Amino acid sequence: MQQWQDYFKSNEKRFMDELFAFLRIPSVSAKKEHQQDMHTCAEYVKTLLSNAGIDDIKIFQTKGHPIVFGQKEIDPNKPTVLIYGHYDVQPADPLGLWQTPPFEPVIRDGKIFARGAVDDKGQIFAQIKAFEIMNRTNTLNANVKFLIEGEEEVGSTHLAEFLTKEAKLLRNDVVVVSDTSIMGLDTPSIEVSLRGLCYFEIELTGPNKDLHSGVFGGAAPNPIQILCKILASLHDYNNHITIPGFYDGVQQLTDEEKSNLNSIPFNEDAYKKSIGVTTLWGEKGYSVFERTGTRPTLEINGIWGGYIEDGSKTVLPSKAYAKISCRLVHKQSAENICELVKNYLRTIAPPQVTLNVKRLGGLGDPYYMDSKHPAFIAGTKAMEKTFGKKVFATRGGGSIPIVIDFERILGSKTLLLGFGLDSNALHSPNEHFNLACYEKAIETIPYFFKFFTEK
Amino acid sequence: MQQWQDYFKSNEKRFMDELFAFLRIPSVSAKKEHQQDMHTCAEYVKTLLSNAGIDDIKIFQTKGHPIVFGQKEIDPNKPTVLIYGHYDVQPADPLGLWQTPPFEPVIRDGKIFARGAVDDKGQIFAQIKAFEIMNRTNTLNANVKFLIEGEEEVGSTHLAEFLTKEAKLLRNDVVVVSDTSIMGLDTPSIEVSLRGLCYFEIELTGPNKDLHSGVFGGAAPNPIQILCKILASLHDYNNHITIPGFYDGVQQLTDEEKSNLNSIPFNEDAYKKSIGVTTLWGEKGYSVFERTGTRPTLEINGIWGGYIEDGSKTVLPSKAYAKISCRLVHKQSAENICELVKNYLRTIAPPQVTLNVKRLGGLGDPYYMDSKHPAFIAGTKAMEKTFGKKVFATRGGGSIPIVIDFERILGSKTLLLGFGLDSNALHSPNEHFNLACYEKAIETIPYFFKFFTEK
Repeated sequence: MQQWQDYFKSNEKRFMDELFAFLRIPSVSAKKEHQQDMHTCAEYVKTLLSNAGIDDIKIFQTKGHPIVFGQKEIDPNKPTVLIYGHYDVQPADPLGLWQTPPFEPVIRDGKIFARGAVDDKGQIFAQIKAFEIMNRTNTLNANVKFLIEGEEEVGSTHLAEFLTKEAKLLRNDVVVVSDTSIMGLDTPSIEVSLRGLCYFEIELTGPNKDLHSGVFGGAAPNPIQILCKILASLHDYNNHITIPGFYDGVQQLTDEEKSNLNSIPFNEDAYKKSIGVTTLWGEKGYSVFERTGTRPTLEINGIWGGYIEDGSKTVLPSKAYAKISCRLVHKQSAENICELVKNYLRTIAPPQVTLNVKRLGGLGDPYYMDSKHPAFIAGTKAMEKTFGKKVFATRGGGSIPIVIDFERILGSKTLLLGFGLDSNALHSPNEHFNLACYEKAIETIPYFFKFFTEK
Repeated sequence: MQQWQDYFKSNEKRFMDELFAFLRIPSVSAKKEHQQDMHTCAEYVKTLLSNAGIDDIKIFQTKGHPIVFGQKEIDPNKPTVLIYGHYDVQPADPLGLWQTPPFEPVIRDGKIFARGAVDDKGQIFAQIKAFEIMNRTNTLNANVKFLIEGEEEVGSTHLAEFLTKEAKLLRNDVVVVSDTSIMGLDTPSIEVSLRGLCYFEIELTGPNKDLHSGVFGGAAPNPIQILCKILASLHDYNNHITIPGFYDGVQQLTDEEKSNLNSIPFNEDAYKKSIGVTTLWGEKGYSVFERTGTRPTLEINGIWGGYIEDGSKTVLPSKAYAKISCRLVHKQSAENICELVKNYLRTIAPPQVTLNVKRLGGLGDPYYMDSKHPAFIAGTKAMEKTFGKKVFATRGGGSIPIVIDFERILGSKTLLLGFGLDSNALHSPNEHFNLACYEKAIETIPYFFKFFTEK
């Protein structure tokens, strides 16, 4: 709409100044020394909302970092959209790898470089500005609530409790989150599902102390070797997971879903080159998108035991450890898989070792949004409008546990209307947000509101 | 012999004072700050040899720590015995775990406590004093050479070079080393073989950087998982090593050897209890002594990769590492096995990863002394005489590379006439030497000379 574009053009410079000011606040939630910055940043989010025309704003203190909530109700009979985002960012280290300092935003090669540029300050900022545009041009036709937390990068520790306590305040028809990526500017896309997650640490104890590998080698059990045997046995020759019952409930894609997913442009050579391998890996019988988006995995995230310093030491170690995690898909239950994996590991551990498995971190169930959901349809139409391209429904391989909490606690489905790119160096040095993506976000979001509220 | 006993009794107190003075010198070869102590200690060894009646003594400087050599030739037609030992000791840390300071020797519960008490100051001291007894009682009937180095605990770095250069000076009929253990005071024993050693570090690279296990999990190769598969495949269900050709040349024991080895008193329950396991491990078809002494092994000494700190991180790592070593037995060649293992690992690594194997440390061939060797027979008879018990020919599981150098460079067989106990806390806090073992050493060695030189 012309008036949206006009408003943006007239305010573009001010928007960028406000975004830069937002990015300059080192709101690193993981680090104690930034505690004051977290409060400063929450206050700044309040200012941003206020500037955009939200008048009912409150900062909720938690045992962790503050949560900012703001809303604008225009008509109780109109639909309510809850926008979720976060103002906290990942630690910036290793600092030496940044081309320019992480908290001194700059535009270079058409990209905004700064910690938080895309994850998630830049994206939640685009949401706030899209609201401002609709509000100031009197085209807002939905009630809007903003929920912007400061603990996403440390596991959203206090958010579920907040959702439960403030469920009434947060009531909505759909949640919209701009914290994911599109496939590319030529291939806009919306993630229709996310994988769930469960994470374990395994401790295997053999002898009660480190032994001399000469004196005892050949007769004493080596826990590293037994751990390797156990972990190696969890995938068969076709890379199917061997744990009985693991795939129970996992749904095969319909022919249509399969054909849609595999119609997404994909250059396998470029994919391999980007990760530096000559041969891909994975479960026999599935394409790359099926493997990463629709199939559960069991991954070894870390392993250690014995002598791991420089040089050699002829030790037969007492202990070996591994961290493993499962990504879960629609209809799998994180709780069930967690118990299944723990019990199976106990079953296969041989009598020479003592096995201890503990769960690490929270459980995350998989998330799935039907592509016939009105918000998904509206999001797709909005992107088609502004990108001028077919919009693909993709399957996210990652996990955003809070999305499951929105469903579980608030009964809300979430539209993952993200505008990042996988190449944006999220969580890494030189994080950036393409200006083109930033502008597309501000342009697209009002169309989402338009299509979502149209009868 | 009565005169040996009389001499010992008359000089017992002085001997102990000299040993304590020896133990008070902190001759830690691994630590730069003890460089001066190494020289002090070498001088003290010279004094000890001189006091014992060796007049031809020389301290050879090396690029590392000095080597002390001394000899007494009584008759060029008589056999020459080269006594090898070392005056350097392991670092004493962790100091907090010592009941009394490591370099302040004390006698407690019939044991001499000090760093180096048994490894190897106490044992080489017993050799020197046994020589003194024979010399002062005019019962010495062999030429004796002492080779006492200061770098055994750091890999005898400069000794092979010295052996090559001074081969003529070191010429002998047999080498005797007192740096090993007996099974117990009731079960005297001599190790008739030592295992060889080769050591590798494996680096497996999958993706060119750490990846997000959600975004890429299921399609990108995980080097930890592949490393586990590779390592797990190196032993079959019966714990035989699967590398083709690995066992080539390994000799099966004769019925007599087998029966001798398995007649050594062994309490499996006590063995299991001492290492804290309920079930032993090992190659099917072999007893514990056969497994640790007569069969080659492939042991994983260390493994690491991915996230190994506290908590969870959903990383699909770029790299995984392991340190592995093989203990080798008679007729295996360390050089051949080294190449065999490296090539086999390269063969089985799948195309998804890049494998890099490097050799760590020196190679050690296995050592074997025929139990019909005159020195072995003499050592056995000597122990039988002084312990009053059957002497067992045991198979050492560990490796003493210098023994191979004596064979390779000097053409000499080595008799491992040790008097320690496996419980002596070698290389650990509260290292000690039982007084009973110390006295048995001084009592036994002259009998070895007697029987070895008897026609």
